[in-house]
Amino acid sequence: MLQQLAGWSFVEGEKIIERRYRFPDFAAALAFVNQVGALAESEGHHPDFSFGWGYVTLSLHTHSIGGLHENDFILAARIDALNASR
Amino acid sequence: MLQQLAGWSFVEGEKIIERRYRFPDFAAALAFVNQVGALAESEGHHPDFSFGWGYVTLSLHTHSIGGLHENDFILAARIDALNASR
Repeated sequence: MLQQLAGWSFVEGEKIIERRYRFPDFAAALAFVNQVGALAESEGHHPDFSFGWGYVTLSLHTHSIGGLHENDFILAARIDALNASR
Repeated sequence: MLQQLAGWSFVEGEKIIERRYRFPDFAAALAFVNQVGALAESEGHHPDFSFGWGYVTLSLHTHSIGGLHENDFILAARIDALNASR
């Protein structure tokens, strides 16, 4: 499924997928964090976020199975759709 | 100055200070991220954030000098004050 998600990469050994997005400043990065946060709450599935001035890195996995589930790839695609619409 | 900031630790080799805060859920963690984000914008000095369900980890350094500046410790104290008021 990963090959359908451009920009996401599988992190060997950690059983996660992650993607880094770039932004022109801190406010734009924080706005995207909030968009993804609202989506995560509505899906009941939450990424881990790393972000700061000009960047947001999201990592996804399914805690309950200690690895990747179809839901991770679905959420990744929805996050990309949010990103495409900004 | 670090000994006046309970909970913050110096990360050897990275020249940053960091602190992890715990929360009861994702929404509470995201709310704190937004509080710290608003403070960072008003100070013109921005942490790096790592957060997800139930936690926020903040790391501080001063990019322009590649290390720690008095402003990092001031911002850390202001973030702790935000945390204490929640």
